[in-house]
Amino acid sequence: MQSDNPTAAILLIGDEILSGRTRDANAHHLAGILNAVGIDLREIRVVADDHDAIVAAIRALDRHLGGAWDMVFSSGGIGPTHDDITADAVADAYGVPLEMNAEARRVMEERWNRLGTPVTESRLRMARIPVGARLIENAESAAPGFSIGGLHVMAGVPSVFRSMVEALLPRLTPGRPPVSETIRVDRPESEIADGLREVAGAYPRLSLGSYPFAEGGRYGTNLVIRGLDAEEVAQARAALVARLAL
Amino acid sequence: MQSDNPTAAILLIGDEILSGRTRDANAHHLAGILNAVGIDLREIRVVADDHDAIVAAIRALDRHLGGAWDMVFSSGGIGPTHDDITADAVADAYGVPLEMNAEARRVMEERWNRLGTPVTESRLRMARIPVGARLIENAESAAPGFSIGGLHVMAGVPSVFRSMVEALLPRLTPGRPPVSETIRVDRPESEIADGLREVAGAYPRLSLGSYPFAEGGRYGTNLVIRGLDAEEVAQARAALVARLAL
Repeated sequence: MQSDNPTAAILLIGDEILSGRTRDANAHHLAGILNAVGIDLREIRVVADDHDAIVAAIRALDRHLGGAWDMVFSSGGIGPTHDDITADAVADAYGVPLEMNAEARRVMEERWNRLGTPVTESRLRMARIPVGARLIENAESAAPGFSIGGLHVMAGVPSVFRSMVEALLPRLTPGRPPVSETIRVDRPESEIADGLREVAGAYPRLSLGSYPFAEGGRYGTNLVIRGLDAEEVAQARAALVARLAL
Repeated sequence: MQSDNPTAAILLIGDEILSGRTRDANAHHLAGILNAVGIDLREIRVVADDHDAIVAAIRALDRHLGGAWDMVFSSGGIGPTHDDITADAVADAYGVPLEMNAEARRVMEERWNRLGTPVTESRLRMARIPVGARLIENAESAAPGFSIGGLHVMAGVPSVFRSMVEALLPRLTPGRPPVSETIRVDRPESEIADGLREVAGAYPRLSLGSYPFAEGGRYGTNLVIRGLDAEEVAQARAALVARLAL
C-alpha cells in the first residue's frame, strides 16, 4: 500500500517472550491502534534483557539515531528489579545521562503515600529517566514511561502498557487511516491466486492480501484490500468479485 | 544465563501481523520448543511482505550471511498468491537461483492427484525452491518448506507451521536445555527487588527474572530462575526463599 503516512516499529524487550514463557499481547494491541490512526507499522522486534541488544535495536529502528522508522514504541524493562535495564540502555543509545526525575518521583511518591507503600531504593529506580525525555502518564500504577527522540518507552505489563498508550496517543502525529475491505471466499487460495494476481496488478497503489484459513477440514481464503482511497478500494473489490465470479 | 547453546532468531513475514489483523501464534509456539531443546532464541522480527525488508532481515539474522545468530526460522509468505514472495527474497539473499524443484513438485502433484485438484501455474509457484535448499516436509498440505544456510523457511498458517516444525526438529543440533524454577510471590515486585538483586548478583551464571502480575486488584510477582545446572538453580532458589523470607 502506497502512503506518505508516518512509519513505526515496535520493540519488545524481555527474556520471558523469547523463552516461550509469555505470549506477548502488547504488539498486537498497539498494531491495531496504529493502523486505525494511519501510522504505518513496518517492523516488530523482540530482544532479550541485554544492554547491547537493546541499544543496537534502538539505533537500528529510530530515524533520530539514523535508524529506519519515524517512531518506535518499546514495551518492557522499566520496572524496579535488577533485570529492568531499558532506561539505562535508552540513555546510552541517545547519549544522555540517566537522572532522578523530580516529576516522576513526585507522582510515584504521591501514590505510595496514598497506599502506605514505603519508598525504597528499588522503587525509586523507576524515577530514573534519561535527561530531556518527556514523561508518559501511567494511570494504572504511577511509574511513568517516557519519550525521547522518536522512541516512546512503555511498560511490559499489559494493563500498564495500555494505559500508557492511551496517554501517549494524543501526542502522536497521525496519518491517513487506511480503508480496508475483507472478502471471505470458501475456496483455497491456490484456486483464486491467478485472478487475485491480475486484479492486484491493476491496482498498484492498493495492498491485496490473501489469508488462507482451515475450518472444519475445508480450506478458505480471506481477501483483504487496503488502501487510502475508499473509492479505489471499492473499485478493486468489485473487480475481484467479477474476476473470481464470487 | 550463560550457555554455549546454539542461538536462534525467528523471522515472521506478513503484513497481516503488522496491520493488527492477525495475532501471531507461531513465534510463541516455536519459542517454547526451542527452549525445551536448548536452542537459545535471542531475537524475533516481524517484517512486511516486502522483498528488500525480507532480504535485509535474513542478512542481519543468519550467521551464514554475516548475521547475528546460528539459526533462523521464518514463517509466512510461501503460499501460491502474488503476495507470497519469501522464496524469491530468500534466493536473492543467498545469491542462488529459484528453480522448479522436482521433489517438491512430485509431492504436491501426488496430493493434488489424490484430491482431484487441478495443477495450475499458481499452485506450481509453491514448488519454486532456491537451488541447494533442502525440503522440509509438510504433512498437512504437501507444499514443502525448505532450509538453506542457517535459515529454515516455513509456512505462516499455524497448522502447517507446526507440522513443518515437527518435521524439522530432528534435523536441528540441540543444546543443553535450561532448568527453570518459578516461585510465585504474593507481593509486588518492588517489595522484593532488593533481595532479588542480591541473590542475582551471587549467581552470575543464572538468569533471575521477575514478572509482575495483577490478579483481583492485587499485585504479585513470578520469580523465574533459569540456568543449565539443576543444582545451582536449586541453590539460588533456596537463597531466594531465605532472603525474601518466603
